[in-house]
Amino acid sequence: MSKIAFFTPVQESILEVEQLMRAQADNFHPDLKAALDHLISSGGKRVRPALTLLTGRMLGANHHDLVTLAAAIELLHTATLVHDDLIDSSLLRRGIPTLNSRWSPGSTVLTGDFIFARAAELAADTNSIPVMKLFAHTLTTIVNGEITQHFNTRCLVDRKQYYERIYAKTASLFETSTACPALISPIPQSCVEGIRRFGYEIGMAFQIVDDILDFTADPAALGKPVGSDLRQGLITLPALIYMETHPEDEDAAMLKDGRFDLGETRLTHLVEQIRQSSAVESAHAEARDYVERGLSSLRGYPASQERSCLEELAQYIVERRV
Amino acid sequence: MSKIAFFTPVQESILEVEQLMRAQADNFHPDLKAALDHLISSGGKRVRPALTLLTGRMLGANHHDLVTLAAAIELLHTATLVHDDLIDSSLLRRGIPTLNSRWSPGSTVLTGDFIFARAAELAADTNSIPVMKLFAHTLTTIVNGEITQHFNTRCLVDRKQYYERIYAKTASLFETSTACPALISPIPQSCVEGIRRFGYEIGMAFQIVDDILDFTADPAALGKPVGSDLRQGLITLPALIYMETHPEDEDAAMLKDGRFDLGETRLTHLVEQIRQSSAVESAHAEARDYVERGLSSLRGYPASQERSCLEELAQYIVERRV
Repeated sequence: MSKIAFFTPVQESILEVEQLMRAQADNFHPDLKAALDHLISSGGKRVRPALTLLTGRMLGANHHDLVTLAAAIELLHTATLVHDDLIDSSLLRRGIPTLNSRWSPGSTVLTGDFIFARAAELAADTNSIPVMKLFAHTLTTIVNGEITQHFNTRCLVDRKQYYERIYAKTASLFETSTACPALISPIPQSCVEGIRRFGYEIGMAFQIVDDILDFTADPAALGKPVGSDLRQGLITLPALIYMETHPEDEDAAMLKDGRFDLGETRLTHLVEQIRQSSAVESAHAEARDYVERGLSSLRGYPASQERSCLEELAQYIVERRV
Repeated sequence: MSKIAFFTPVQESILEVEQLMRAQADNFHPDLKAALDHLISSGGKRVRPALTLLTGRMLGANHHDLVTLAAAIELLHTATLVHDDLIDSSLLRRGIPTLNSRWSPGSTVLTGDFIFARAAELAADTNSIPVMKLFAHTLTTIVNGEITQHFNTRCLVDRKQYYERIYAKTASLFETSTACPALISPIPQSCVEGIRRFGYEIGMAFQIVDDILDFTADPAALGKPVGSDLRQGLITLPALIYMETHPEDEDAAMLKDGRFDLGETRLTHLVEQIRQSSAVESAHAEARDYVERGLSSLRGYPASQERSCLEELAQYIVERRV
């Protein structure tokens, strides 16, 4: 778990969340226990649980329900990663071997299904119908996004599709991570919308920054080559902006036509062009705009330690380097 | 859909269920629509929806909620079959090409996930917390059963494991198909147990009969060779009983030791020995015992057209030939 300041008030609770996540394989097949332990030990910054816990504390939700909810959301996230890594044949995530790198495809599919099932059980344990509905709907959104990306590979070249994709991939679960704790808090239901919006905006920013880091971060720290999205045929915001601002670049124009057969040399050159262009800063400015809108949404709630932490979390999202 | 008598009072409702199932892909990626249409058109007898609808009508549940619930349960069943067929590399189900026979593994995994997600949304649409909990728990049970079977292949040779496996594989969803409608019916909650038990008992019988038919049915009608379970290293009740009653059979003893390297000739001979032995009739007697217990559970509810249909459904389960 991270040592970033905004985690401090929820540090202990995040350990409880991880414990509850691990406990989901108790009394089931022992290999599931091993798989879940491996996945949870492989880390992740636990941004979503922190978001859920801080939001719920700020709004006065019950501690036990919050831990349950945070575990449900992080498990849902984990299950989608298990299936994603299998589908993409990824051998490493965060520098650690993926489940599919060691297990058969069948075992990996079933382990993902099992984690989905346990996540749904935990969501149901909150005894909140709106939470269960939002939770199930978020899974639909995420999977539909993956399917769209999977079927449309190599022709995703407009902004509308890009925003839809990052909403499905990331922002939908961020908004669920703030809306669900609000739904189980003793606040008027009219106050849910503002905090849902905070989650949405910082979720969009989170994915844009991820997409920028794919061009700018140290490949060693990132665990993948520079421009790996583009190399896989995925056009993200920096590339989109570069195409818009460099209509004369013939290599970029080829991508725009859905042609990814540039060859290694020209592709590496294009990645470098994008990396050094103002497209990176323009994309970053968009991420900051999202965070700014999120923060102004958050200002509708009374000042508190948790609100300050959520503000820090939002800033962290645009400022992080890996 | 089947023309069997017990379907008559719910024939129209089952069409509504199928329509609602198909509608789950509306407004999502068009290939999902095609996949879902294919899966729903591929049939299935709709025994689970019939069970849910008849039980709910008998107990006075709201029609709209029952249709929603039946669609949720049948979609959950469909999603598990999609992942199962992928894992087993099955090319046909009920004589019709499986999804994985035409699509990439990635698309098939995601389509199964999507159907799980939509099933969970439909379950949540019943607005019943007990239904959502049972629904999610059933998914856990089914998947844990598949994982156990997947990891323990070729060493499943005792009755305890057999009963656990058929409970996870089949009876758990049958009991959910009767318990869920009871949970949304205007009856004292103490009356739920009897009907849950009915679902459990006929679900166990259903799987035992399936396992018998794997030895006795016409392979053309069944769409797979005689004894296909045993050929895949799966010891079902007829084989278990044969082993118990024929300790002198050396080929059977080899299977009991987890050795499936009998070779085609000896395996075919063993399948034939089991098929012609009294093990088939003994297994059938067990299935009838389950149904008898189910029927006596059902007799605790007032007589009605629906109760008669449920009795017929139970009888059909043990009497069917394919």
